[in-house]
Amino acid sequence: MSDNPSFVLRAVEDVVYEDRPIPDIFDDEVLVEVKKTGICGSDVHYLTHGRIADFVVEKPMVLGHESSGIVSKVGKKVKNVKVGDRVAMEPGATCRVCEDCKRGKYELCPDIVFAATPPYDGTLARYYRIPSDLAYKLPDNLTLEDGAMMEPLSVAIHSVANIAGLRSNQNVVVFGAGPVGLLCMAVAKALGASRVIAVDIVKERLDFAKSYAATETYVPPPFQAGESRIQYSQRNAQQMRDQLGIEDRGPKAIDLVVDASGAEVSIQTGILIARTGGTYVQVGMGTPEVTIPITLLLIKEITFKGSFRYGPGDYALAIALAAQGKIDLKPLITHRFAFNEAIEAFKTTKAGKSADGKGVIKAVISGPDVSPNDF
Amino acid sequence: MSDNPSFVLRAVEDVVYEDRPIPDIFDDEVLVEVKKTGICGSDVHYLTHGRIADFVVEKPMVLGHESSGIVSKVGKKVKNVKVGDRVAMEPGATCRVCEDCKRGKYELCPDIVFAATPPYDGTLARYYRIPSDLAYKLPDNLTLEDGAMMEPLSVAIHSVANIAGLRSNQNVVVFGAGPVGLLCMAVAKALGASRVIAVDIVKERLDFAKSYAATETYVPPPFQAGESRIQYSQRNAQQMRDQLGIEDRGPKAIDLVVDASGAEVSIQTGILIARTGGTYVQVGMGTPEVTIPITLLLIKEITFKGSFRYGPGDYALAIALAAQGKIDLKPLITHRFAFNEAIEAFKTTKAGKSADGKGVIKAVISGPDVSPNDF
Amino acid sequence: MSDNPSFVLRAVEDVVYEDRPIPDIFDDEVLVEVKKTGICGSDVHYLTHGRIADFVVEKPMVLGHESSGIVSKVGKKVKNVKVGDRVAMEPGATCRVCEDCKRGKYELCPDIVFAATPPYDGTLARYYRIPSDLAYKLPDNLTLEDGAMMEPLSVAIHSVANIAGLRSNQNVVVFGAGPVGLLCMAVAKALGASRVIAVDIVKERLDFAKSYAATETYVPPPFQAGESRIQYSQRNAQQMRDQLGIEDRGPKAIDLVVDASGAEVSIQTGILIARTGGTYVQVGMGTPEVTIPITLLLIKEITFKGSFRYGPGDYALAIALAAQGKIDLKPLITHRFAFNEAIEAFKTTKAGKSADGKGVIKAVISGPDVSPNDF
Amino acid sequence: MSDNPSFVLRAVEDVVYEDRPIPDIFDDEVLVEVKKTGICGSDVHYLTHGRIADFVVEKPMVLGHESSGIVSKVGKKVKNVKVGDRVAMEPGATCRVCEDCKRGKYELCPDIVFAATPPYDGTLARYYRIPSDLAYKLPDNLTLEDGAMMEPLSVAIHSVANIAGLRSNQNVVVFGAGPVGLLCMAVAKALGASRVIAVDIVKERLDFAKSYAATETYVPPPFQAGESRIQYSQRNAQQMRDQLGIEDRGPKAIDLVVDASGAEVSIQTGILIARTGGTYVQVGMGTPEVTIPITLLLIKEITFKGSFRYGPGDYALAIALAAQGKIDLKPLITHRFAFNEAIEAFKTTKAGKSADGKGVIKAVISGPDVSPNDF
Repeated sequence: MSDNPSFVLRAVEDVVYEDRPIPDIFDDEVLVEVKKTGICGSDVHYLTHGRIADFVVEKPMVLGHESSGIVSKVGKKVKNVKVGDRVAMEPGATCRVCEDCKRGKYELCPDIVFAATPPYDGTLARYYRIPSDLAYKLPDNLTLEDGAMMEPLSVAIHSVANIAGLRSNQNVVVFGAGPVGLLCMAVAKALGASRVIAVDIVKERLDFAKSYAATETYVPPPFQAGESRIQYSQRNAQQMRDQLGIEDRGPKAIDLVVDASGAEVSIQTGILIARTGGTYVQVGMGTPEVTIPITLLLIKEITFKGSFRYGPGDYALAIALAAQGKIDLKPLITHRFAFNEAIEAFKTTKAGKSADGKGVIKAVISGPDVSPNDF
Repeated sequence: MSDNPSFVLRAVEDVVYEDRPIPDIFDDEVLVEVKKTGICGSDVHYLTHGRIADFVVEKPMVLGHESSGIVSKVGKKVKNVKVGDRVAMEPGATCRVCEDCKRGKYELCPDIVFAATPPYDGTLARYYRIPSDLAYKLPDNLTLEDGAMMEPLSVAIHSVANIAGLRSNQNVVVFGAGPVGLLCMAVAKALGASRVIAVDIVKERLDFAKSYAATETYVPPPFQAGESRIQYSQRNAQQMRDQLGIEDRGPKAIDLVVDASGAEVSIQTGILIARTGGTYVQVGMGTPEVTIPITLLLIKEITFKGSFRYGPGDYALAIALAAQGKIDLKPLITHRFAFNEAIEAFKTTKAGKSADGKGVIKAVISGPDVSPNDF
Repeated sequence: MSDNPSFVLRAVEDVVYEDRPIPDIFDDEVLVEVKKTGICGSDVHYLTHGRIADFVVEKPMVLGHESSGIVSKVGKKVKNVKVGDRVAMEPGATCRVCEDCKRGKYELCPDIVFAATPPYDGTLARYYRIPSDLAYKLPDNLTLEDGAMMEPLSVAIHSVANIAGLRSNQNVVVFGAGPVGLLCMAVAKALGASRVIAVDIVKERLDFAKSYAATETYVPPPFQAGESRIQYSQRNAQQMRDQLGIEDRGPKAIDLVVDASGAEVSIQTGILIARTGGTYVQVGMGTPEVTIPITLLLIKEITFKGSFRYGPGDYALAIALAAQGKIDLKPLITHRFAFNEAIEAFKTTKAGKSADGKGVIKAVISGPDVSPNDF
Repeated sequence: MSDNPSFVLRAVEDVVYEDRPIPDIFDDEVLVEVKKTGICGSDVHYLTHGRIADFVVEKPMVLGHESSGIVSKVGKKVKNVKVGDRVAMEPGATCRVCEDCKRGKYELCPDIVFAATPPYDGTLARYYRIPSDLAYKLPDNLTLEDGAMMEPLSVAIHSVANIAGLRSNQNVVVFGAGPVGLLCMAVAKALGASRVIAVDIVKERLDFAKSYAATETYVPPPFQAGESRIQYSQRNAQQMRDQLGIEDRGPKAIDLVVDASGAEVSIQTGILIARTGGTYVQVGMGTPEVTIPITLLLIKEITFKGSFRYGPGDYALAIALAAQGKIDLKPLITHRFAFNEAIEAFKTTKAGKSADGKGVIKAVISGPDVSPNDF
């Protein structure tokens, strides 16, 4: 009998459904019946490469980490949720005793158990257990799909609200109009940014960004023969300045650059375009090493920060902004799949569009017991 | 009659003494009779290249900006100093009305009049005028040579105390054991750093660093054939970790990296060696573009900041720490020259050692009316 | 011929119109033809008491400091505005050289020349001169009345955005629903506060607050016989908790308390009601000494801050939020007077309502050459 | 057979030795054989009043919370210490899941289990169990008595380093020269404070403070007939200014006031004496309600903060500063008692001096199996 059907990555491009035992829970944990799971680029990357940086899939691993569900069992010490509650699931369980956990930076915990980061199983299963404080009750006006989106939204919240500390009326440029970039734009707008400039090389993505959360858009020019990357970026930055009326200081300057692309020329352009005394946050992962204009960073006294996952308060703020209607997650979910269509969902996400040509922003896989049409 | 003899750079490698008029002063300014001026790498760079970044020497310019002297005239609104006072001279006069000046970041003022940065004349003259609040009365226990050293010390104060916000008991690595690097070590020690690790490729400089302010030293290994720079840096970082017992977290981790070298491999190694959640400050200028391990910076959530010159409070803190005996500037002054030996002083600084083989840390040129032996 | 008609306070309750000379301007100053001036409680207080704290009216002084106007003359160094520009006028000219000015806290400058704070004349005149950087060009969609409101709005911006550092989704209680309190509510709302609770003893003011920017309102109970002030405040705080569902921690807790009343029981209640680890900002001036529950402040580790006037960036943010439509200033202007009705305007403000019984929030006096009906 | 002799408070002034069972430990806990325990004012207060604020002794409770000892047993998950290690014991075990614990403010955890705060037993016993991360291995150059002093030292570290964020070269006034006040002075000095001014009404305590960590001392004058408290404080503040050369701004101004006295006139004087833009930290508990000069606090934009116990990193910094020799704890331990002399130790602490007239700073009670002369 199948107790806990799970979508398992066994090796590169080798996925299979397995029956797994239903996890036992400790007194401070809850068992969640997973209902909706978004597919993230990292899931696809494990499928196609079997690794991300030093994290290598060495034994079969359940995929998925952007999930919501319904609490089906609670440990006896649990007070914050009860059986039947609809919850968003924060997928990283931390040690709570290391110095990073204790000083309010638990995203840096070296012993974090993060769903679908090897060697830990993910959430694409019927059941998943988590510490109860990582199960966030969804307000009535949010759907389970919204709940699954809290994971990427928290990534954006962490970078824009927490790491960058964006303040009202600041101007922001976001490089990359994929799911995380779009959510960074949405967070910037929700926090009161004045200008939210979206940059991407795909015009269709910018059209969506404009309809969604950006106030302006920008398409970088093509490379020219013989041009180095940094020369290209200098030309690109100058074109941005001219085209969008960006200045180094004052109300037209860029207070915050968020790179959600991981592309070297975006990173370079971002540093070139940031205001004197401005902030730059790297949230997108791409080439592990990139060349940056460091003398300019020095002269402008730019603060350049890495943003990794999410930390204290990020999930709570994500849920609040969505519940208050300041961030609308629904337009981002472009494709929906049943649990037994998971392979198709990954294929579609990898391709970037479905067979009908519709571009993918976020594909969501439903749990085994729920219909894709039941949000 | 020579009123204001000045040491003027006319073009690359073309310097000459000129008589210049004595400047008039405004009501809120003072005229200082310059007594001691340290030579900085940037002075030498203008001499040998005629430019630094976008600052180009297009007309004759007096050199020098690390100076102290005696107040010879005060404007009628001046209250903080009087004629005869020995003063350290902060060489950047800012506009005081731009947003950067007003929000406490005057080092970023676009209209700063900075001594010996084109097109503005420097301090290697008999007289120099400055706004009175930039003339800092020296305590009795500091010499005029100490006063001239307040400029590079303020650069170190700005980066370590202000930009990095070093706290007591933190561990610091400083790359580069030239004047600014040594002063960064001295500031770190004065602020209570636990470990102050000096890194340089010249063993003699490290020996001095150890005797001066470093608790530990490290000499990077030579390059290996076929190794990329980043591969070298990874090997270098691993060797540092092993040799010095550096860890990623906990009491042996590096809370702060200060790069005063501007060298690409130092910058790379610095990011690799910094603790999870640590801080990196770039104070040394070198190659304008460098390759950095950005994914690691992201995953470790490193805060990477540029530090440029000095801002509010830096000169005052520099003087206080020196006056309290927490920083000793005397050991850094290795060579002394009379005003009419300025060319020799530049030659010696450029060579890095004098004819007798003694390495230069800081060469000081005396004013026209003071002996090099009169500190 | 009357060049510069001015509304002058000669002694307590003794005001008169005088012709004053038109001020000369320096090269970095502008002369503004004043068009709209709001009356502030402090203006009334000087009229009725002749002093505020240590500021004593010892010689005739022009009243008024909440003003906007049209630039009629510019010094030859002025670039940011030109003759004919409509501007909001920041009324405090600071020294720009003291440590407070230089470190970004110019509101603390001991040498500030502040309009209508003795011994300096105010803005209720045809002409007023200010340094050009304190003249802020008004966007087209803001009126001159909006411009006059930038002064109290900046007080609210300073306290809520700058001193308190309010972040999106935080809960705020504002004590006092007068002009500054209402503007603090408006700023809190504009910055994304989740709950904005208005507290006042006058129900009509709360009705307006609710219609304007508050999400909830609260009327404190009457005193009971034999009750000490602190006992009253404890009862009041408990009633607030019960009535509004306020908790000590979590999403229903009060992250920020702003007191714009200056009343002792409000201050006490504010500390009692603030969340563990919360922030309290005092912006309203009242009794010079008040009793506070200090042990509770300690145990809850509350940060309690004073907010005085406004500093760098506050005027710019005030104008931006108004221009973006996030703060509507028009509903606050309840009464309008011609220049020659200034005495009536003060009388009405002091009474708190006009002869027709209409409550005063803000009365605005027009300049000599503009009609009250011409906004 | 006596397994775990414990010193138990049964009711006001009613203490007794009881045999208690040796606690079982969880996998992440350690059992410590307690060797040295300092007596704190709060212990005495429970003995004499049976309560502090809302914490009421309702059932028998073991006293003591400033302790060190030797690890006698470790849970199977414990890695940071091993049996036989000498450790300082942090006495507050927090829940680790509430928002305060997660955001790095665990001192505010509502579910903290704090030794000798009702209803939780303290450390005056042979054995005490704690989570292993709260057992800090003592460096070889620190004694077990030093280890017991880490608790009050951490209170001082928390207030001066963490809550106040004292920076090098700042000027500090500490009101109250009891154990916590003296340790605040020691921390201020260790962090590089320029002036450390001790204030107390007992001259002998100031003499000790001067020999220990203060750079200057001040004895407040006696009250005058008919003078209100605030009038007294104003006179007191003026006398301090005159006598010590304190100014409102500049290098002679007081950047930080720490009140470790809890006395109303100290609190008032502290606010009056603090610099414009300065910081005030309340660490001493006394009268629950005090009157403060709030208008002055507002005008000076003082940041007034409560400091409660200690949080992340405080114990580690306390141990590091002591091990580095920057803080010497030995002079503070004036009286030593054997375990069976605990009642005498409390009596002496309460009296403030022993029978021989020697003033008490800190009395330490040894564990049942260690001699008072064996540090």
